[in-house]
Amino acid sequence: MDKIGIVDTMFACIDMGSIAKAKLESQEDCGSKFEVVQRTVPGFKDLAAAARQLIERDGCGIVIACGMPGPAELDRTCAHEASLGITFVQAITGVHVLEVFVHMSEEADPKAFSELCRRRVEGHAINAYWLLLRPDELRKRAGQGVRQGGDDIGPLQVE
Amino acid sequence: MDKIGIVDTMFACIDMGSIAKAKLESQEDCGSKFEVVQRTVPGFKDLAAAARQLIERDGCGIVIACGMPGPAELDRTCAHEASLGITFVQAITGVHVLEVFVHMSEEADPKAFSELCRRRVEGHAINAYWLLLRPDELRKRAGQGVRQGGDDIGPLQVE
Amino acid sequence: MDKIGIVDTMFACIDMGSIAKAKLESQEDCGSKFEVVQRTVPGFKDLAAAARQLIERDGCGIVIACGMPGPAELDRTCAHEASLGITFVQAITGVHVLEVFVHMSEEADPKAFSELCRRRVEGHAINAYWLLLRPDELRKRAGQGVRQGGDDIGPLQVE
Amino acid sequence: MDKIGIVDTMFACIDMGSIAKAKLESQEDCGSKFEVVQRTVPGFKDLAAAARQLIERDGCGIVIACGMPGPAELDRTCAHEASLGITFVQAITGVHVLEVFVHMSEEADPKAFSELCRRRVEGHAINAYWLLLRPDELRKRAGQGVRQGGDDIGPLQVE
Amino acid sequence: MDKIGIVDTMFACIDMGSIAKAKLESQEDCGSKFEVVQRTVPGFKDLAAAARQLIERDGCGIVIACGMPGPAELDRTCAHEASLGITFVQAITGVHVLEVFVHMSEEADPKAFSELCRRRVEGHAINAYWLLLRPDELRKRAGQGVRQGGDDIGPLQVE
Repeated sequence: MDKIGIVDTMFACIDMGSIAKAKLESQEDCGSKFEVVQRTVPGFKDLAAAARQLIERDGCGIVIACGMPGPAELDRTCAHEASLGITFVQAITGVHVLEVFVHMSEEADPKAFSELCRRRVEGHAINAYWLLLRPDELRKRAGQGVRQGGDDIGPLQVE
Repeated sequence: MDKIGIVDTMFACIDMGSIAKAKLESQEDCGSKFEVVQRTVPGFKDLAAAARQLIERDGCGIVIACGMPGPAELDRTCAHEASLGITFVQAITGVHVLEVFVHMSEEADPKAFSELCRRRVEGHAINAYWLLLRPDELRKRAGQGVRQGGDDIGPLQVE
Repeated sequence: MDKIGIVDTMFACIDMGSIAKAKLESQEDCGSKFEVVQRTVPGFKDLAAAARQLIERDGCGIVIACGMPGPAELDRTCAHEASLGITFVQAITGVHVLEVFVHMSEEADPKAFSELCRRRVEGHAINAYWLLLRPDELRKRAGQGVRQGGDDIGPLQVE
Repeated sequence: MDKIGIVDTMFACIDMGSIAKAKLESQEDCGSKFEVVQRTVPGFKDLAAAARQLIERDGCGIVIACGMPGPAELDRTCAHEASLGITFVQAITGVHVLEVFVHMSEEADPKAFSELCRRRVEGHAINAYWLLLRPDELRKRAGQGVRQGGDDIGPLQVE
Repeated sequence: MDKIGIVDTMFACIDMGSIAKAKLESQEDCGSKFEVVQRTVPGFKDLAAAARQLIERDGCGIVIACGMPGPAELDRTCAHEASLGITFVQAITGVHVLEVFVHMSEEADPKAFSELCRRRVEGHAINAYWLLLRPDELRKRAGQGVRQGGDDIGPLQVE
């Protein structure tokens, strides 16, 4: 059976991994065509090593890596480093590791932030499922201005 | 038969992959000397892993990776990370992955932007074809100030 | 027996490695389930190679890499390079290397700085232990806003 | 016979590859001890993959990679990415890839720019030749403030 | 016999490699326990490939890589790229490559600059020797605020 890995952090203020897991489990062929493997690491710089372990030790065909960068200047540099780690792992393994980062600075209101986080994680959970099992769903949305977290902006309108 | 891979994104507002595919299919030896393999991923950070898969799973001899970075400051950092991913894949595999990025900030007018996008994608589609099958076409244009998307600037004029 | 590697620097102004070692040795199954391997290098740019040696020569299942970046602008660039080195090693080996950096600019008061350093190193020592031997401790704290060095900020409160 | 690879771009406004080739061919043991392999790619981000191909497919013992970054802010980021690609290839293969970049912003006057370009390319062509076949020529110039493109600044004078 | 590699540049204005070599040769077990292998490359971006060659072709157990970045803004970017190359080589090989960079902007006075350079190179030569043959010398100085080039700042004083 195919496996989708999920890794999130203790650092984040929302249990992002559980949101991703619930969304994946709501797909009808969860349990028949794929199963979910879940892990948690301390912070987002630890996502890359965990992703590689999910790929090689656990045999995941795709990984969702969830993190929540803080608002300070130093956090941006750290997020960049974390992102490059995820990038290296993908370049080395050739397996998709979807980076799902929700920056604390994106929304000041807790409720709106929470909603943004939920929608982005769920959107990428579906993306992971599509990449692994339904690539045609992606192909038919090429160039459609699809977003995760906010509304799609749609294809460019040229009158 | 040689294979040229194309990967684009749902994030972009123009179906860049189809532009590249049409241009490649307009070459007379498409179908006899090479064929096209096409994929779509969620966003440009997912291009690197897809490129590696096109190279190793699908046997592509070259890949065209299309993305459309947004206009925000954070988008520039993400584009840099996406670009480094494509760079790593090339360094690791030794296979060309042509990065075709059209930045939303390059043109405000939708029609001009659409035209810029079409020309750049088509230009790189031809480049991919030349790199794989007609390297002499590149060699004879060395130092000619060739551009993709805008007009060539030509060789430096020293009176 | 499992091994946890610790590497720190002569450059730092606090013996960070000894703090990490003491914390690990205070765990009840130290000596029965895991042992500690310790090294020191000149500066934080030397941590990556040492981490790789701890993983491959010494067989460590996880490594704690301690550094203390100085306050100058150039130090930030160097810290970024050191961090990318640690990131590469993780991407290549798939083994966690916990980056424990305490920036000299974080606290002006020596006593507060010393306390911050101790808490952060100890926090990551526990994280290393959990990652290697008690992954459930991490999973149950997912999204809880856990910090190392300062107080936890807790999960996001949505009324 | 040893091989020296040269790769340049269509993007540049000067045929840098031909300058490098002519300089190498003016060495007396060209044809007896080494030969030149030449390629052209679209832009400088394509140099890394071509360099790796020159090393592994064509058996070059060293590569000269010529590019001409444009004057815009975005060009600097692209040049950085291209440079990191060349850096990765060297780290992975252990073969020198001499990065010969002439930035369009270095000289406004076309004649002076053209002269700068010629001198830098020729300087690095000699460097490639020395690295491959005459390492003692480099050793005896250690710390001599040698430049490619402009005049040498010479060793530091301490009265 | 163990080998310590030294690589420096023609670009630098001081023969840094000879300073490192003299310092290593002043150690009493030079010639009995270790020997020195020395190379020179054009500039600091060439250090990474040379370091990898010293490790793999020449069998060096550690390498000292000496460079002297210029004072311009572009030099800082180049130094960053050179540093990442050295970092990659260490991550890939697991062998220490000590980066010994003396920035021309660090000291305006030639005599003071020369002295700074000598002290930093000598300090890292000793570090290389300790890392390879006397790791206990490093361990006992952990957290002691040791510097190369300037005076040690010593351990943090908490009254």
